[in-house]
Amino acid sequence: MVNMTTTTTVGATSTAMLTDHYELTMLRAALADGTAHHQAVFEAFARRLPDGRRYGVVAGLGRIVEAIESFTFDTSRVAWLLEHGIIDERTADHLLGYRFTGNIDAYREGDIYFPNSPVLTVSGTFAECVVLETLILSILNHDSAMASAAARMVSAADGRPLLEMGSRRTNESAAVAAARAAYIAGFASTSNLQAGFQYGVPTRGTAAHAFTLGHTSEREAFASQVASLGTDTTLLVDTYDIPQGIRTAVEAAGTNLGGIRLDSGDLGDEARKARALLDSLGATSTKISVTSDLDEHTIAALTDAPIDLYGAGTKLVGGSGHPTAGMVYKLVAIADEPGPYAPMRPVAKKATSKGSVGGRKVAYRALDHQGHATREVVVVRHLPGAPETGLGRALQVAVIRDGHVVHRPSLAEIRAHHRGAKAELTALDLDLAPGTPRLVADPTAIGNLIGAGA
Amino acid sequence: MVNMTTTTTVGATSTAMLTDHYELTMLRAALADGTAHHQAVFEAFARRLPDGRRYGVVAGLGRIVEAIESFTFDTSRVAWLLEHGIIDERTADHLLGYRFTGNIDAYREGDIYFPNSPVLTVSGTFAECVVLETLILSILNHDSAMASAAARMVSAADGRPLLEMGSRRTNESAAVAAARAAYIAGFASTSNLQAGFQYGVPTRGTAAHAFTLGHTSEREAFASQVASLGTDTTLLVDTYDIPQGIRTAVEAAGTNLGGIRLDSGDLGDEARKARALLDSLGATSTKISVTSDLDEHTIAALTDAPIDLYGAGTKLVGGSGHPTAGMVYKLVAIADEPGPYAPMRPVAKKATSKGSVGGRKVAYRALDHQGHATREVVVVRHLPGAPETGLGRALQVAVIRDGHVVHRPSLAEIRAHHRGAKAELTALDLDLAPGTPRLVADPTAIGNLIGAGA
Repeated sequence: MVNMTTTTTVGATSTAMLTDHYELTMLRAALADGTAHHQAVFEAFARRLPDGRRYGVVAGLGRIVEAIESFTFDTSRVAWLLEHGIIDERTADHLLGYRFTGNIDAYREGDIYFPNSPVLTVSGTFAECVVLETLILSILNHDSAMASAAARMVSAADGRPLLEMGSRRTNESAAVAAARAAYIAGFASTSNLQAGFQYGVPTRGTAAHAFTLGHTSEREAFASQVASLGTDTTLLVDTYDIPQGIRTAVEAAGTNLGGIRLDSGDLGDEARKARALLDSLGATSTKISVTSDLDEHTIAALTDAPIDLYGAGTKLVGGSGHPTAGMVYKLVAIADEPGPYAPMRPVAKKATSKGSVGGRKVAYRALDHQGHATREVVVVRHLPGAPETGLGRALQVAVIRDGHVVHRPSLAEIRAHHRGAKAELTALDLDLAPGTPRLVADPTAIGNLIGAGA
Repeated sequence: MVNMTTTTTVGATSTAMLTDHYELTMLRAALADGTAHHQAVFEAFARRLPDGRRYGVVAGLGRIVEAIESFTFDTSRVAWLLEHGIIDERTADHLLGYRFTGNIDAYREGDIYFPNSPVLTVSGTFAECVVLETLILSILNHDSAMASAAARMVSAADGRPLLEMGSRRTNESAAVAAARAAYIAGFASTSNLQAGFQYGVPTRGTAAHAFTLGHTSEREAFASQVASLGTDTTLLVDTYDIPQGIRTAVEAAGTNLGGIRLDSGDLGDEARKARALLDSLGATSTKISVTSDLDEHTIAALTDAPIDLYGAGTKLVGGSGHPTAGMVYKLVAIADEPGPYAPMRPVAKKATSKGSVGGRKVAYRALDHQGHATREVVVVRHLPGAPETGLGRALQVAVIRDGHVVHRPSLAEIRAHHRGAKAELTALDLDLAPGTPRLVADPTAIGNLIGAGA
């Protein structure tokens, strides 16, 4: 397994302009009036889950850490910002020296979240925290949406392996992140080579219809593929006529043929017919993969079919109808004077129904004696510190301290954490039918249990 | 306007691994059996538009050209592919020397497309064309989905400017591409700085709720913003109480205040009340921007409200419910022997209802005397050549010839082309209600009108 810290390639340059214009104009005004230097706390959370979803899966934290490490402004960017009147000279000087020196606490990647769960907390000066809003949300919203959809497909597949293959149906860089997120949520592999190269996600694939069509006969195409990739390969048998394709496949590879793939038609029906035909030909160990526009519902409907591997593409990268997790990044506490020890006040927007609870939140998941989640306990308090005891599993972990990354689990560790966290869910949570979350983090329920009013 | 050829930053390194595993295994087998060196033609097209859509907008071509120029394999990538058993030594040698030397013809970026429109055609050896499938589709499907959604919002806005602000609700790199696509389809600006820096899309933005909350009073926040950004700025007035926020804004900036922004509540109702209040305060030229989860339908419903600018975010980057254009990349013709002059045969998958028409397609848009599109004329023929006359506007343009880019319009030219192409649509096409495309490219209608049977 390649570690996540392997040198990245695509997108490895500065991430600093992956930012909304208004963050730098806010910074400009805050530098001018001094607010820039006040200590602040921002939280990323989802006010609600996408319609019908019962839980969400946190993903993207590892990518956020890397993106923050690359969040630096060089002279060409600063010159462009100045030329376009977005920043002034004071802001330019500030950005040239920018490096995040604050703290980040977050739910572990792969963990489960619910409405209002304080998924990620950024603290530091207003100046250094405010400019990270867009980048943090882009990664967290995208990757969590992918992982949340993937987790449902994994439940539906009920132990059968899933291949992520949606690269062609999403932005080329988003595809890499989606492959990583799906792997975190339990997919076995991806078609995307960059996800393998950059993150160590296992990749797989054999051939498309173009390969068969590119030869003068299906027989010739299969023979070539077997000669090159061995009999353990998977042959795509639905270019012309499926039963004839299966016969030709077994003739080309022998009864040790690794697998066949079906990419069209009624997959359950075709899989049953294919299994019977393969068995009658003696290819009893040949596996059947299906790969046509699957989501958690179509996968669940195929439970009784003799299928060995599902490929999920379009629906996975579309978040199975919900391509964003809808998290927001909100200022929840700020000091009214500069300096690290200035007292902070809790803040929250009040004009509308969007109302949130101010103050830094600390989160625990209460578990029953069987290890099932019973409550998302959120305590509002002023400063991070030693965890309370008896409130449940502490959900937040220190990720960055004084600008230094202190939490960088491997993808294998993240996958394992996800499995454990998902095991805390009940059948009600895992039901694929539209529903409402059983657990909702409600900071008002406990309120200022601990801390100095913020 | 920065030209599209400006040195890019994010994602500017090799794009070669943004590829599905199976493309390299197909290449491996094709190199072994010789098919790799046969001339081939692949086409990218959509069998159907997303449900209810009446037309699509082509976007991403400029990015595809850049991505193909960066599609090269270095030794670290090739070593990784070898180590993981994906390629053999012969394929490794081939990839180290890979550079696309074929041709690409395509619908101009910004043009309109319909079901089966041959949007992009790649020709060259099987080896050099087959490996581009994923990358071309990723870009074309994502960017066209964004532009198609954006074009509907532009129609709904009926001349009022639109700001793209969805960066936080999509992958951080996808956000840049979405901003570019929305601009092509007629958006006025984006919040995304990278889209400005990299592509010259105008950027804008002023402040978020965090800026107001970060100050001890709204009055103090507004005064700071005006001091820093001038009275022509836009003040966000809905943090606490909207009418009071508007009064405070006008007090802070005077009656020359540039604009106010509303981000919550019933936007039509709030805009009407805000307009009346602004006028009563003498701020008659102060503009009203609204920015809360808008799509083409909510924008259209606000036609009668006194709104000067719409900000569209989540729905735009989600393709307004259709985050991918669903185009496919299919082999349509191939030679059965190597060499540039070997005769080609048309090919198409036959097993299922996915059936396509083989052979290279050349496309024209027939127009009536008012300039409205009456038919998408598609002719199947063997080789590219001089356009037919009398069939309508030739839709394809030479983009790459023998590996050299020969078509690199500026973003301004692309926007202008889009406006012209959209003007060929009728009220029926532009209707936002779900419908079916009035035009469908049907290669079987004309068939082998011209050419040697392919």
